[in-house]
Amino acid sequence: MTPLPRGFVFAGVPSGLRSEPGRRDLALIVSRVPAAAAGVFTLNRVCAAPVQVTRQRVPRADARGIVVCSGNANACTGKQGVEDALRMAVLVAEELGCDPEQILVCSTGIIGRPLPMPTIEAGIRTAAKQLDDTEAALIDVAHAILTTDTRPKTCHRTLQLGASQIRLTGIAKGAAMIGPNLATMLGFVLTDAVVAPDHLQNILRRAADRSFNCISVEGHMSTNDTVLLLANGRAVGAEPLVGPDLDAFAAAVEEVCVHLAREIADDAEGISHLIVIDVEGTRTEEEARRVAKTIAESALVKTAVFGADPNWGRIVSAAGYSGVDFREEDLSLWLGDMLLYDRGMPQPFDAGAASAYLRNNREIQMKLVFTLGNARCRFWTCDLGYEYIRLNAEYTT
Amino acid sequence: MTPLPRGFVFAGVPSGLRSEPGRRDLALIVSRVPAAAAGVFTLNRVCAAPVQVTRQRVPRADARGIVVCSGNANACTGKQGVEDALRMAVLVAEELGCDPEQILVCSTGIIGRPLPMPTIEAGIRTAAKQLDDTEAALIDVAHAILTTDTRPKTCHRTLQLGASQIRLTGIAKGAAMIGPNLATMLGFVLTDAVVAPDHLQNILRRAADRSFNCISVEGHMSTNDTVLLLANGRAVGAEPLVGPDLDAFAAAVEEVCVHLAREIADDAEGISHLIVIDVEGTRTEEEARRVAKTIAESALVKTAVFGADPNWGRIVSAAGYSGVDFREEDLSLWLGDMLLYDRGMPQPFDAGAASAYLRNNREIQMKLVFTLGNARCRFWTCDLGYEYIRLNAEYTT
Repeated sequence: MTPLPRGFVFAGVPSGLRSEPGRRDLALIVSRVPAAAAGVFTLNRVCAAPVQVTRQRVPRADARGIVVCSGNANACTGKQGVEDALRMAVLVAEELGCDPEQILVCSTGIIGRPLPMPTIEAGIRTAAKQLDDTEAALIDVAHAILTTDTRPKTCHRTLQLGASQIRLTGIAKGAAMIGPNLATMLGFVLTDAVVAPDHLQNILRRAADRSFNCISVEGHMSTNDTVLLLANGRAVGAEPLVGPDLDAFAAAVEEVCVHLAREIADDAEGISHLIVIDVEGTRTEEEARRVAKTIAESALVKTAVFGADPNWGRIVSAAGYSGVDFREEDLSLWLGDMLLYDRGMPQPFDAGAASAYLRNNREIQMKLVFTLGNARCRFWTCDLGYEYIRLNAEYTT
Repeated sequence: MTPLPRGFVFAGVPSGLRSEPGRRDLALIVSRVPAAAAGVFTLNRVCAAPVQVTRQRVPRADARGIVVCSGNANACTGKQGVEDALRMAVLVAEELGCDPEQILVCSTGIIGRPLPMPTIEAGIRTAAKQLDDTEAALIDVAHAILTTDTRPKTCHRTLQLGASQIRLTGIAKGAAMIGPNLATMLGFVLTDAVVAPDHLQNILRRAADRSFNCISVEGHMSTNDTVLLLANGRAVGAEPLVGPDLDAFAAAVEEVCVHLAREIADDAEGISHLIVIDVEGTRTEEEARRVAKTIAESALVKTAVFGADPNWGRIVSAAGYSGVDFREEDLSLWLGDMLLYDRGMPQPFDAGAASAYLRNNREIQMKLVFTLGNARCRFWTCDLGYEYIRLNAEYTT
């Protein structure tokens, strides 16, 4: 059995918000004691009511729980939407006997429809009665937050730091409307470490930049993206983390976030290839991320991978309009272990072998090496094929 | 018969650069006398050799001709590529008996392959012998510059300005790798007006901003985008244009460019719907363009139109991540004549009628009205369906 962070309980139930009978769509994550909490959110100007509510509540020292509904984003729903999000927190707080401010709210799903509050309310009451610290309850949560994902996404780590045995558990959902900053994605990382809220916020921001901000499905930034990190200090032998221990903890948080982010890219709507883009030798990490993101969001690059076509000019030309300043002589490109473009010069290569590489591997590696500096970034995306079109032309309404 | 601007001759021939037998792939546009010339080009850092060569040659007062090859972009081809582009100009100059600097060079097609210069040279020689001022010769040019376009694109206008009877003819190609600034597009506007090179450059820049910079197929900026405007002063009664006459001329150039840009969007790879996005009420035209471009490049918006799904949350959320600062209360959205979102509030609407509107019309109108200012922009894009995937997964190599 996976050791979960101590002091957390979980429930994921079918509230009836989603039309499929029995499908779990309402989740509670509760810390038995007040927990430090950090959050990062979508930068979309049109952001959902729960984002508006929750981002005002973190970082904080005394979070008690997270409530999530899936199937309805509660976005573009005006003042009523904000009232509904606030009400979700009130309902959970009533169940836990805490202040509503201690509850964080998330939603994901269709935009522009009011939440059916009687359904949500009944769901919260039911979920509160089922809260449990088992792995089965955690898996119920991982299922309840999904939309078009094909599988739940979790990740666990254990760290021994001096006398403290620290556990981390991450849960996420993705699927589409996935673009950096962040994605239609929700992510929750729970730990029983003792970490001050401000440290927690810095650690989460940095981890998100190297994980959830390094994935893209089609680059459409969602209204609802939220990643929350809760640390409740209930680990065996827990003491406030400082110095190298805090660094080790931060690295573990990043590891969990990277794992979940990669899982999201790997379960993107309609995916047939996971594309891993390494960009090296830029002046800054942000430059590397811009180049990678531009390539990751080029429909021409994505369809070429889908079609097993080693049309590398599409990759180089995407780098060229990323906004990063470089000359062609500054850039080399590898596809897998094949060097296709060496400091601005096309290289002879075996097109048949390159095509076979694309056809025969689910995971495709692209590496761009610049001669501009020492920064780097790893980015994950998917190809673009018929199935993405089918899913997105037929979704909803 | 369409009256063409006086003093221009045309030829489009099959050089053998393209594998399809008899397919025209090499074009010459020649002014019998030195012409003022202006140009706008891709902003891609990775730009093709002909772009590197040609953008140093405009604006100028004494251009004599344009040479274009299609099927090979002469991009990512290193120093040899630049030498080849320069050589194309030399070959044309030899035929015309002028300075190579007076010749402007363009290419479009696959990236990363050296030009087969013996083929190109023979094609230029053949084309030079066929130069003619007929509409048939012009249509040959319009065909010879195409790649995956399904049809040639031309546009004609006649202006009576005082004693001058001025004619304009535009020719363009598009199809894919189309994103603002500019697109994998080539555009040539020819006129027999008398306009100074600097005026011509300003007129073209502004016209391009409202036409070729307002279209997107998938937002992938090409390495080869080029629009050239030549004015040779051979109109009947031609006098240098100034004041209101110059404004009228500029408006006609913009009209020709808008017509061609719209034609490019309407003939995008795999299109089944032309989407016209009007954005109004922003602080600046650039803000309006950013909002429209972000919507136009959202795969979720494009697949929703393809699937006749009035999932308007995708449109509003794309506006939200365009980078333009606004509040939801500043924004209203119409689809056709249906108001779906009124100053931040979702409106009741007939989803069946909205879906029927998308299903039954080839041309779809989206209008976003902000309350931020008085600027506006009209933008053209296409939907995203199976055919785009098929074409781009199977193109080349």
